[in-house]
Amino acid sequence: MRMYDILLKKRRGFELTNDEIDFFIQGYTRGEIPDYQASAFCMAVCYSGMTENEITALTMSMANSGDMVDLTRFGNLTVDKHSTGGVGDKTSLIICPIVASLGGRVAKMSGRGLGHTGGTVDKLEAIPGYRTSMSMDEFMDQVETVGLALIGQTGNLAPADKKLYALRDVTATVDCMPLITSSIMSKKIAAGSKNIVLDVKTGSGAFMKTLDDSVELANNMVRIGKACGRNVTAVITDMDTPLGYNIGNSLEVIEAVKVLNGCQKDDLYEVSVALAAEMTSLFMNISANEAKALVEDSIESGKAISKMVEWVKAQGGDPSFIIDPDKFRTCTYKYDVIANEDGYIGAMNAEEIGKAACILGAGRITKDDKIDPEAGIILAKKKGDHFGKGDLLATLYTDKKDTLSSASEIFLGALTLSSAEPEMTPLIAKIIR
Amino acid sequence: MRMYDILLKKRRGFELTNDEIDFFIQGYTRGEIPDYQASAFCMAVCYSGMTENEITALTMSMANSGDMVDLTRFGNLTVDKHSTGGVGDKTSLIICPIVASLGGRVAKMSGRGLGHTGGTVDKLEAIPGYRTSMSMDEFMDQVETVGLALIGQTGNLAPADKKLYALRDVTATVDCMPLITSSIMSKKIAAGSKNIVLDVKTGSGAFMKTLDDSVELANNMVRIGKACGRNVTAVITDMDTPLGYNIGNSLEVIEAVKVLNGCQKDDLYEVSVALAAEMTSLFMNISANEAKALVEDSIESGKAISKMVEWVKAQGGDPSFIIDPDKFRTCTYKYDVIANEDGYIGAMNAEEIGKAACILGAGRITKDDKIDPEAGIILAKKKGDHFGKGDLLATLYTDKKDTLSSASEIFLGALTLSSAEPEMTPLIAKIIR
Repeated sequence: MRMYDILLKKRRGFELTNDEIDFFIQGYTRGEIPDYQASAFCMAVCYSGMTENEITALTMSMANSGDMVDLTRFGNLTVDKHSTGGVGDKTSLIICPIVASLGGRVAKMSGRGLGHTGGTVDKLEAIPGYRTSMSMDEFMDQVETVGLALIGQTGNLAPADKKLYALRDVTATVDCMPLITSSIMSKKIAAGSKNIVLDVKTGSGAFMKTLDDSVELANNMVRIGKACGRNVTAVITDMDTPLGYNIGNSLEVIEAVKVLNGCQKDDLYEVSVALAAEMTSLFMNISANEAKALVEDSIESGKAISKMVEWVKAQGGDPSFIIDPDKFRTCTYKYDVIANEDGYIGAMNAEEIGKAACILGAGRITKDDKIDPEAGIILAKKKGDHFGKGDLLATLYTDKKDTLSSASEIFLGALTLSSAEPEMTPLIAKIIR
Repeated sequence: MRMYDILLKKRRGFELTNDEIDFFIQGYTRGEIPDYQASAFCMAVCYSGMTENEITALTMSMANSGDMVDLTRFGNLTVDKHSTGGVGDKTSLIICPIVASLGGRVAKMSGRGLGHTGGTVDKLEAIPGYRTSMSMDEFMDQVETVGLALIGQTGNLAPADKKLYALRDVTATVDCMPLITSSIMSKKIAAGSKNIVLDVKTGSGAFMKTLDDSVELANNMVRIGKACGRNVTAVITDMDTPLGYNIGNSLEVIEAVKVLNGCQKDDLYEVSVALAAEMTSLFMNISANEAKALVEDSIESGKAISKMVEWVKAQGGDPSFIIDPDKFRTCTYKYDVIANEDGYIGAMNAEEIGKAACILGAGRITKDDKIDPEAGIILAKKKGDHFGKGDLLATLYTDKKDTLSSASEIFLGALTLSSAEPEMTPLIAKIIR
């Protein structure tokens, strides 16, 4: 088999076999197939597309390119969630303890934030002592005893995807449905859970800006995940507006604790409950409505927040920060953004708000930047809210005073003010099972 | 400017500017743009195509990537020819002295043969003493005094094309009209002649197997050449059947001399006269008919063969081999292919016949193979000829006895015998001015 012939076959519009795709992926991972053939392949796929069989083969081959986490000892109870990334998206911190409190087994590996979206691992590291890496044995033991462990992605999970993604990033081939689908799903397949819920964000702060693109991606991922032998549901959720009110690492932990305590019933609560219900529905094999009732009860009864305390403690974190989030340090500088007229928030550009938080120190612009766990933004008004002149719109937190003026400028630029109440987009646009 | 943005722009279907194309080509030539971005670019062009402006910019940029031969001292008299490559194609040996005898200035750089097609430089090296490399000053002086010099391509002519072609060859992006067009024309533009005649071969022995593809390539090359400020004519000629009767290096020199002596008036003569007439028409700025009369007179009067003698002598070759081609050594082994039935030659697969000659020692299978100047094939019958049982079909010549059986087998396999006289395809399908 030669990569040249595979390229020619793809270019001529023929469907590649599983063996051909595997020859490419394993050869590329081992360094036997050069970057220049791999980039030509990705570009050909951007134009020719891929059949469902091809995407499934690509996903499985990338999943098989490194370690495959073996969770079979937990039977059908394993459940994972993936978000395509958003601003203020702290749902993992909320739904993982809920699902674990209901008997699910959550063996989760998450990424770090880059650019305007945050990463769950960064958020957890805001809790003093929390360890985001541990041995595979420790990880498995904690899933067994606590029902939940959440660490950073290990180096050798789907290395083919890691290598190929870096290449796509410099050859303008990121934005391509079959490659996006297989990239996400290969990591989820390798991570081993039987049940997977995908939170596909749509809107200004999402990777997919339009509902049509989000639905297409969600459909593809569900189909491919099922073809790979997993139970998969996708929930398409709004990311036109940041989720919840807090953006920034410790600020998001604080907000997650509020939701788990039953003290905040907003868009964040609603999305978290929907995702947790879909996860529960899958691993318990019950209806989404039955699952929703269990999820709500887990919050109301205090089981969810207890599980969070247990989890953080098991993973080396100081649980007193969960019991009393006022313990979190606040930033040196605090700046209130005040309205100088009255009206409604007509729209919020979530991506721009994410960038403002990033500048304040909550995120990384390049991979090597250090983040400031306490920096970020607390929104006071969200889309649809009315405000009067002099009202507080948001508070910015930072340790770097000189970032305040540009961050507040970007923040204000992200708001569209309107004289009339805006039409609201649905929080949960669609569920694909 | 970033290569990433150029790739994205091309992928999204926008026309690239001259500056963007030049940024890519010069950066790639200098090694600043990596192979993986260049191969992604080539693949995108295979799918998206290129506008005429883009192809012109690509051609000029590749021509400018290395040395540009400056022939301005010869005014509008400079004339070059390019063939897309065929079997038994020794027209350069015939038309260059004809055109030079009529006052044209031929400063020609040719390639070596690879695969089933021969190279002019290899053919000339069959003449004892002929030097295929010389300094640029010597080269210019000979064009001045003799009107004709023909050497191997120098190392630094259109290096961007050389590098890009090698990459295309391993990424399945050779077969792409804008890239083929710019590859051929960039070298011709860099070689400096004001007037260029393109011999676009069509048929089984040609790179372009169908007339439609050949016409499209010819049209593209003529348009792009003109856009680059040159006078360009393309002649589409048949390569379903080898040209002339002799295939192999010294064998082709011998046949060229026969045509120049006016002793062979067949397909080879006709194609040579047509090409020389188009060249003469361009550099003299006269009609093709007037030019044809001058070309025929050059042969009949002996001016053409005298120019060949003068040329070979000037370039260090032994002119007695041109005056008396019987002086060429013949191979140790000679094998007559005899018909064992009677009928017509219905078709000849020129590519296969070229391969048979290659095996006998006339060509290279890999770049490092040594060729045997005297090896090859002399055809006795060509397409449309009738033969009886026991008639000679061809004679094979080699110094490697063990190649005879496989070469004769391939040769016979290349013939389609038929009981009726076949329909003949036109020798010159089209002239595009």
